[in-house]
Amino acid sequence: MTIAPRPPVTLVPVGWRRPHASTLPVTGAWRPSHPPADRQFMRMAVDRPFILEGGGQLRDLTIAFETWGELNAVGSNAVLVCHALTGDAHAAGRAGPGQLTAGWWDHLIGPGRALDTDRYFVVCANVLGGCQGSTGPASLRPDGTAPYGSAFPVVSVRDMVRTQARLADALGVGRWRTVVGGSMGGPQVLEWGVMFPDRVASLVPIATCVAATAQQIAYWSTGRRAIVLDPKWRGGDYYDAAPGDGPHAGLALARMISQITFRTDDVFTDRFGRDVVEPLAGAFEMWQRFEVERYLEHHGDKLARRFDANSYLLLSKAMDLHDLGRGRGGIDAALARITVPTVSVGVSSDMLYPAYQQRELCERLGRQGVDARFIEIESTHGHDGFLIDTDQMAAALTDVLDSLEAPDG
Amino acid sequence: MTIAPRPPVTLVPVGWRRPHASTLPVTGAWRPSHPPADRQFMRMAVDRPFILEGGGQLRDLTIAFETWGELNAVGSNAVLVCHALTGDAHAAGRAGPGQLTAGWWDHLIGPGRALDTDRYFVVCANVLGGCQGSTGPASLRPDGTAPYGSAFPVVSVRDMVRTQARLADALGVGRWRTVVGGSMGGPQVLEWGVMFPDRVASLVPIATCVAATAQQIAYWSTGRRAIVLDPKWRGGDYYDAAPGDGPHAGLALARMISQITFRTDDVFTDRFGRDVVEPLAGAFEMWQRFEVERYLEHHGDKLARRFDANSYLLLSKAMDLHDLGRGRGGIDAALARITVPTVSVGVSSDMLYPAYQQRELCERLGRQGVDARFIEIESTHGHDGFLIDTDQMAAALTDVLDSLEAPDG
Repeated sequence: MTIAPRPPVTLVPVGWRRPHASTLPVTGAWRPSHPPADRQFMRMAVDRPFILEGGGQLRDLTIAFETWGELNAVGSNAVLVCHALTGDAHAAGRAGPGQLTAGWWDHLIGPGRALDTDRYFVVCANVLGGCQGSTGPASLRPDGTAPYGSAFPVVSVRDMVRTQARLADALGVGRWRTVVGGSMGGPQVLEWGVMFPDRVASLVPIATCVAATAQQIAYWSTGRRAIVLDPKWRGGDYYDAAPGDGPHAGLALARMISQITFRTDDVFTDRFGRDVVEPLAGAFEMWQRFEVERYLEHHGDKLARRFDANSYLLLSKAMDLHDLGRGRGGIDAALARITVPTVSVGVSSDMLYPAYQQRELCERLGRQGVDARFIEIESTHGHDGFLIDTDQMAAALTDVLDSLEAPDG
Repeated sequence: MTIAPRPPVTLVPVGWRRPHASTLPVTGAWRPSHPPADRQFMRMAVDRPFILEGGGQLRDLTIAFETWGELNAVGSNAVLVCHALTGDAHAAGRAGPGQLTAGWWDHLIGPGRALDTDRYFVVCANVLGGCQGSTGPASLRPDGTAPYGSAFPVVSVRDMVRTQARLADALGVGRWRTVVGGSMGGPQVLEWGVMFPDRVASLVPIATCVAATAQQIAYWSTGRRAIVLDPKWRGGDYYDAAPGDGPHAGLALARMISQITFRTDDVFTDRFGRDVVEPLAGAFEMWQRFEVERYLEHHGDKLARRFDANSYLLLSKAMDLHDLGRGRGGIDAALARITVPTVSVGVSSDMLYPAYQQRELCERLGRQGVDARFIEIESTHGHDGFLIDTDQMAAALTDVLDSLEAPDG
């Protein structure tokens, strides 16, 4: 028997190398030196610090936001759209200078669309702690010396909502016709209902829950550990590193983990199956990739270009801290403050925020006499179904808005 | 309004520090200098190299194994137990010097138990590429100069099974009464049926599938990237690092990710809910942990003490490469080689290897005329149900073994 010579096999991670790493910024955060794109900015009063729920405080807060349509004379046709963890204020519109992504809900916002900008004044604000224009860990400290980095305090969803209420004041919106949002947008919607029950006319929480479950915390926490494991995270103070030397690999891995939970077994099988990038002919190599790996890498790298690792830590922690009942005598006591029509939307195949959680939310509200409905989006796409199956999402939104009285003015 | 002073808040990862890191070995691999415990060793002939399916080759192979009970005179009462990715040959018995874990199926193997050692000769071998006595990346190269490390070739499940066949020869076992195993044990069971159809009398694959799915590959691949992200992995050549300076954090994170997939939403909610380790009173901190995080850390650290990061890479890759149909004209052509009674066991709540996969395996075998049955373990524990719900697992095993003719001799 003759043994054919084989190429050497090795554990060196070929597939892990990023040839264009040096073209990456240190952080994907938007910076004031970048073009503003469609961002508008609200700077909050500096006479006293903004005290956060978790005990930290911030001065000189900026909230970046976008608007579509016109506010009517009595300020009654406004809709607040709340974005997900890695979303931003650019819910509708194109990508361009200063804005790497097209609107994440572009199919739903515009003239004649579900959030009809001929009728409604639609607002979306980048959350506090985010990285696309609102104050977050990549922002300069008030003294202008350096970014916050590791000194940025923990923020909660309630803190985010308080900044949005200040934005509503600034815009002249007394009461939102509806507040709508999915994933991390969902807790914001619910906190609006609990914290400001008189300032909402309806609520549309999507693919969310009344308090983060242990499994959700487990998933997000592994993402945080991926970032911390990256030596280029540097304890959170990486902003003065050279281009390409930021914690991209850690942030990308965090995204890869979460991207699995955003989709489903079925979708991955249909789309990728066992297809390979590098052919298996000849010899097996440790870093040959299956197509699904390339897909995850693609999503990881893409996020690293437009997001900030510290914001990912902070916002995923805010997700884990989400608990409507905290400090309020429990979840039902909190829900008792919600009195307006509420449509709880779930996605049938969501593995991260399974539909039973949105059904349960609806039932708890119903038991308290709230006009609550549960709508399930039939989708194989999983959690991201609310971003993908926009026709069903549009129908749910139209349903809610049409059931309310016509806006005055 | 007076602002109460608050403790400083910071992103420094308190919960991530490991006070006893210096007590960790560089690798959790068993070394020949350690006590052998219950291990026996088979050294494979050195006259020619063992050519691997993926093109690599190995010399001077050692397979560590354990046995329970006595082989009968005609060698017909032997049962092969195949272990999961982080399992080892110690399927039954206590922990002790040289063996950090108690038998992973101790409830099922012993006198009067489902695998009754008064009747059967039970064998379990550490897989090729593993780290508990069989040749793997932490083993010394044949020239004795250094561990293989990054030079260790990719192994497949078929390679593992070929070493087990050599072990069967050495033990005098012509035909196993049954070959049984769950998770990564499952592909080994199926490959036994396909590669050596005359050497098995029945098969019990558990919580497995005919070919790794894209979602499974996605999960395992994120674990591999966690290891590679750890600078202490050092490209795979970390064995001469100081104690405590091995790629523990990366391996632990890989385990944390997979541990989520081994269990379920329900179990995590019941067991941990939103309980916290460090109280939230006073101020929120980024690295305050929920109990589920401590649980995951515990499992991650425990694995880092008893496992080798390179073996984790290698065996998870073998899992991803699992495809009964590769080079055989497809899965059904491969399954056509299986002719013996087969009981495909699934766990009702398994999210990593969902029960539809074991049902499908059963159906495909049934269509080919095989006496195939599907047994579903009713469990909330998820994938690990086959290790936890041992009563139901015992019933399934007894069912199979009792349906066969009594062993001769």
